[in-house]
Amino acid sequence: MNKSENNTSWKEKLHEVIYEADTKEGKLFDVVLLIAIVASIILVMLESVKSFDDKYHNFLNISEWIITILFSIEYILRIISIKKPFKYIFSFYGVIDFLSTIPKYLSIIFVGSHHFAAFRALRLLRVFRILKLARYVGASNKLLLALKASKAKIAVFIFFIVIICIILGTIMYMIEGDEYGFTSIPRSVYWAIVTLTTVGFGDIAPQTPLGQLIASVIMILGYGIIAIPTGIVSSEMTKTTLDINTQTCPTCAAEKHKDKAKHCYNCGSKLN
Amino acid sequence: MNKSENNTSWKEKLHEVIYEADTKEGKLFDVVLLIAIVASIILVMLESVKSFDDKYHNFLNISEWIITILFSIEYILRIISIKKPFKYIFSFYGVIDFLSTIPKYLSIIFVGSHHFAAFRALRLLRVFRILKLARYVGASNKLLLALKASKAKIAVFIFFIVIICIILGTIMYMIEGDEYGFTSIPRSVYWAIVTLTTVGFGDIAPQTPLGQLIASVIMILGYGIIAIPTGIVSSEMTKTTLDINTQTCPTCAAEKHKDKAKHCYNCGSKLN
Amino acid sequence: MNKSENNTSWKEKLHEVIYEADTKEGKLFDVVLLIAIVASIILVMLESVKSFDDKYHNFLNISEWIITILFSIEYILRIISIKKPFKYIFSFYGVIDFLSTIPKYLSIIFVGSHHFAAFRALRLLRVFRILKLARYVGASNKLLLALKASKAKIAVFIFFIVIICIILGTIMYMIEGDEYGFTSIPRSVYWAIVTLTTVGFGDIAPQTPLGQLIASVIMILGYGIIAIPTGIVSSEMTKTTLDINTQTCPTCAAEKHKDKAKHCYNCGSKLN
Amino acid sequence: MNKSENNTSWKEKLHEVIYEADTKEGKLFDVVLLIAIVASIILVMLESVKSFDDKYHNFLNISEWIITILFSIEYILRIISIKKPFKYIFSFYGVIDFLSTIPKYLSIIFVGSHHFAAFRALRLLRVFRILKLARYVGASNKLLLALKASKAKIAVFIFFIVIICIILGTIMYMIEGDEYGFTSIPRSVYWAIVTLTTVGFGDIAPQTPLGQLIASVIMILGYGIIAIPTGIVSSEMTKTTLDINTQTCPTCAAEKHKDKAKHCYNCGSKLN
Repeated sequence: MNKSENNTSWKEKLHEVIYEADTKEGKLFDVVLLIAIVASIILVMLESVKSFDDKYHNFLNISEWIITILFSIEYILRIISIKKPFKYIFSFYGVIDFLSTIPKYLSIIFVGSHHFAAFRALRLLRVFRILKLARYVGASNKLLLALKASKAKIAVFIFFIVIICIILGTIMYMIEGDEYGFTSIPRSVYWAIVTLTTVGFGDIAPQTPLGQLIASVIMILGYGIIAIPTGIVSSEMTKTTLDINTQTCPTCAAEKHKDKAKHCYNCGSKLN
Repeated sequence: MNKSENNTSWKEKLHEVIYEADTKEGKLFDVVLLIAIVASIILVMLESVKSFDDKYHNFLNISEWIITILFSIEYILRIISIKKPFKYIFSFYGVIDFLSTIPKYLSIIFVGSHHFAAFRALRLLRVFRILKLARYVGASNKLLLALKASKAKIAVFIFFIVIICIILGTIMYMIEGDEYGFTSIPRSVYWAIVTLTTVGFGDIAPQTPLGQLIASVIMILGYGIIAIPTGIVSSEMTKTTLDINTQTCPTCAAEKHKDKAKHCYNCGSKLN
Repeated sequence: MNKSENNTSWKEKLHEVIYEADTKEGKLFDVVLLIAIVASIILVMLESVKSFDDKYHNFLNISEWIITILFSIEYILRIISIKKPFKYIFSFYGVIDFLSTIPKYLSIIFVGSHHFAAFRALRLLRVFRILKLARYVGASNKLLLALKASKAKIAVFIFFIVIICIILGTIMYMIEGDEYGFTSIPRSVYWAIVTLTTVGFGDIAPQTPLGQLIASVIMILGYGIIAIPTGIVSSEMTKTTLDINTQTCPTCAAEKHKDKAKHCYNCGSKLN
Repeated sequence: MNKSENNTSWKEKLHEVIYEADTKEGKLFDVVLLIAIVASIILVMLESVKSFDDKYHNFLNISEWIITILFSIEYILRIISIKKPFKYIFSFYGVIDFLSTIPKYLSIIFVGSHHFAAFRALRLLRVFRILKLARYVGASNKLLLALKASKAKIAVFIFFIVIICIILGTIMYMIEGDEYGFTSIPRSVYWAIVTLTTVGFGDIAPQTPLGQLIASVIMILGYGIIAIPTGIVSSEMTKTTLDINTQTCPTCAAEKHKDKAKHCYNCGSKLN
């Protein structure tokens, strides 16, 4: 019994250190983890630079193994210290934690086949370790609330953008044609998106006067309608700032009361 | 008489399925139509990719025929099931529905002339089928209301943009001239639009120091005045979101009541 | 005496037609002038397209003469029909009206020297005819008011942009140097402006890893601070929309009262 | 004693001229300094243009010496006329003032080594003289206040942008690969930033259909989320502009009083 109690308290201590940041040890754990994540991302990036990988291959490989083992220990500790391990394993962070450690282990198994593209892709999964950082950003901040509130409007907006780009891309395909790089409708639609979003790579550019005229219309359109998502988010955030709440009047079901309203603006009955 | 009654009810049933989405059948009809529209757009796009068309020409042709016949049936059913067919035929959606089915049939008539550019253009009319999707977006949503409210201001804004681009384009034509790609005023104006809207293709770029100086001015101008359409739509949407009117409470003089308010949010007395 | 009266009334009639748009004739005059302005701009633009000018030189020349004479008549009539002609002649529109007619007449005088660049520039002055259109835009609309109100803030903003670009441009010149197109500081500053304003021509692009890192910082900076002019104009327009007035309290000189406030929010005394 | 008094008053006079702008001499000093700063920046820029430096090397060198000596005198006078010289020397402006004069003097010492890159960098420190201009911009203006208020949100936003770019860059590296310019993950991340921020240089551009599809998603994403920083700053500035607090009138429960309100705008009773 004493042992079991001891065991429980040991687990609880571990839970506190890993899942919370109130204690000194909890904060230290978070700082070490943060450094490990950032270091591992830099390693993945440097490994992809051929000239660097040729020179420091051993250093990169050893560092990667150290970090992988560190993350594996973290993963196992997280499973041990939680009461419902499966809830963690199949949660968003659990999946990310698993995916960010497994590719390095697979590299021993597939050691002879390291030149397969499919395997290279697997190794790059390690870049998703960056999502572990999401733990350190308050999930309920106003910014995300404003975004969630305007989700439906933004979806309608993107839908319109895509429709406009398909139609304008098709028209440009008819006007410019093969000679000037508009070789197919998908490619022309791609160009229309590049232009409407004001990115403008310039790898494809209209050459005929009519094509340039329509391109001008697309650009002014894109320059103007960038105001729409901005307007949506701005007004949504202003609303959040001005404290309009989601209370509903118990008498007449009217909505959008001010945060401190005492009477319903619609029927005059008291709000609670 | 029984037959006629039966007929009417049959038409009514059809009307319900096609024009409404309340019943189970109505929803099913909408889903099938949505899939058909998206599939047909993808077909038009793939057909324009030469390498794909060469390989799967027959598959594309047959799929296109199936979808065209499907849309034709839909078109005929819509005419049959509505009381005033001509109102539908000459409505926005009626014209779109007609234009999106006819090109495939014309391809049989003009079968010998399939290499004419004019005919290719006709076939591409099928891309407008995408506008059928507009049926599924609430036409009276707040986004469009805000846009309509700021229509006049946006027109004035675009008008100013065009004037600025014509003047700056002409100045750049004088400064840079033929050697650096500014071969004519329309081309220079096109470049000014590309630059002011922050698209920046880079197919034409100023090379002289003076030209680069003026280009810098255009860019900072464009970067600054993008704020104007955004400001217009933002303030318009904030107004719409807050539903604020200019009424004053006759009892306590409180202001900024909501548009539909019947009672003062402050003292609870009736508003008129 | 009768004649003088007749004369006056004739001048008054003319004034009404030219300077006002209330009567039928006044509206007709405006429409004709509008068409002439747009036509003259198109003529200037087409003239600069060599292939077009070679083909239709005579047509362009004659059309230009017709429009120039039309504008000359308008200019003379405006001088005759106004009471204080010099006030008009030296007004903004008077100068524009003069500059837009004179270049064509000068082309006869300098007929032998039509290949001088200086003269070509003079001829292009005709493009400023487009500013005549400004007459038809209400000068006192809310848009311009909001812009005027935020003028000082926008100036500070542009000042900061220029300082940032000079510093970042100099740093890029040190890092990238001659080999990669950053041949001098002014050119590097030009590149920094191109990048910060998100235009991105791509004629100059960083090639060294460090240069690309700093370019990334510039781009994210530019992407982020575009919010500043937008925020300025948005809040200024929201203020205009929400009807905050410029009334000052007669008792304590407090400002920014709501449009319908009856008591000063500061000292509680009545506002008038 | 008389001498000491004289000395003090002389120092006070100097302090007034240099650090304040109330007197006639103070204003003149500021104007001269402003001109010197702008001139010195132009000199640094022109010196970097090889063709210009070759022609006017002596002129540039002499002008630079005159300005450097002028700034040195200013620096010494600032130290003399202030009571706590070390506080100035180690202040932001003190360091800038020192760094902007020292490079020219170092050029005599390192005269034989003028082709060292490290020394060239030192000479370019003179460009930071532009920061001296910051003295003339009110440091406490509303714009900076709004920026400071939204600092935390903007940091979170930039953090998300970087994460998104690292993930999307890695995906593009897997899809496009070496052949199309995506030679390493850092380079692909750089491209993702170029695209997401709508800069779009075009030096690297996706060529595979799948790469172009993902590029389209990145562009629409970038076009949409530009709304977020704008929304943050807009709502923050609207709040600042309206000076609204969350106080409620104890007499009539009116809300949204201005920050400095002492009386309820509605009923005139005292607010606490």
